[in-house]
Amino acid sequence: MGKVIAEVTVVPLGTCSTSLSDYVADVERILEKYPQIRKQLTPMSTILEGDLNLILKVVLEMHENPFLSGAKRVSTRISIDDRRDKNATMQKKIESVKSKI
Amino acid sequence: MGKVIAEVTVVPLGTCSTSLSDYVADVERILEKYPQIRKQLTPMSTILEGDLNLILKVVLEMHENPFLSGAKRVSTRISIDDRRDKNATMQKKIESVKSKI
Amino acid sequence: MGKVIAEVTVVPLGTCSTSLSDYVADVERILEKYPQIRKQLTPMSTILEGDLNLILKVVLEMHENPFLSGAKRVSTRISIDDRRDKNATMQKKIESVKSKI
Amino acid sequence: MGKVIAEVTVVPLGTCSTSLSDYVADVERILEKYPQIRKQLTPMSTILEGDLNLILKVVLEMHENPFLSGAKRVSTRISIDDRRDKNATMQKKIESVKSKI
Repeated sequence: MGKVIAEVTVVPLGTCSTSLSDYVADVERILEKYPQIRKQLTPMSTILEGDLNLILKVVLEMHENPFLSGAKRVSTRISIDDRRDKNATMQKKIESVKSKI
Repeated sequence: MGKVIAEVTVVPLGTCSTSLSDYVADVERILEKYPQIRKQLTPMSTILEGDLNLILKVVLEMHENPFLSGAKRVSTRISIDDRRDKNATMQKKIESVKSKI
Repeated sequence: MGKVIAEVTVVPLGTCSTSLSDYVADVERILEKYPQIRKQLTPMSTILEGDLNLILKVVLEMHENPFLSGAKRVSTRISIDDRRDKNATMQKKIESVKSKI
Repeated sequence: MGKVIAEVTVVPLGTCSTSLSDYVADVERILEKYPQIRKQLTPMSTILEGDLNLILKVVLEMHENPFLSGAKRVSTRISIDDRRDKNATMQKKIESVKSKI
């Protein structure tokens, strides 16, 4: 196993407030402890690039975080793109598409 | 119904090649016909902002596209974030999180 | 375009209660109006089989439903499996895997 | 951390064949080694119930499996529903919705 690109969304349910940005900011701060993982915040998710085992460890920590702030139910989604015939990166994936549009 | 933020992924299955960027570029070109929809290409998806009915119409067109290039099976995922207590945009969602990190 | 298999999840956000079964039951009741669509409720989603255009119409109605019960933000996910080289059904997909395990 | 309900989909990309049931059957066989995890095969995914850490270990093994059969790119999706205010099970979630329809 090696480097993958993964997309993560951590959503607390039943929080009374429709705004989730405080929870998302808390979760994002966790990523600052892991400089080995490249990250990109999008309007719908966080995209990570790095070692799959490390990413899953970090996602577990992200998933646990809203419970520390009082959430009682958390829905977490992870989507892993693992390509082993070439060295894929977030940047190369975007450039490859843009060069063809 | 009004404006939403939606994330879309269109993936052809059984295409022999592990590279999907040609298909993704074709699908992205469709979006250029719809200036009313804001769009952002990410390494894992395309994020759209606009009227929900129009977005679903466009997603159907994106989903149909790989079949025109010979694909025989297509997997499409759509994630809709519809917030009616305030005017949410892709840009505001990102800014709201970044201001709190 | 023809028959597809689609998986749908409709989740209201910011509802104060961690229990979502009332919302899910309301959404399921909508499906009873559409006997042309086969459906299967799973612990994580609803799976539908039928015409893609009709399914998207029904999903829009499912997505709208929690707003009628007071929700102010709804997150809806749709995953479409569209195979055109053979007539795929929910039942055949399961049987095909089980015959090989 | 304790028991969660999780939905998993493992899809090899670029496999030439549109049929994925051989891969899915291989992946399902892995689950038979883990009787501590309850499982349900649906037409769109596998749903698991059990300890979150164990489930992630098993999902990693499921994700790795298609590479052993020659796949060069694998897309894996995991959706975790973690509720800590009550003991949620796959069966109770379904029963709770059905009792309200």
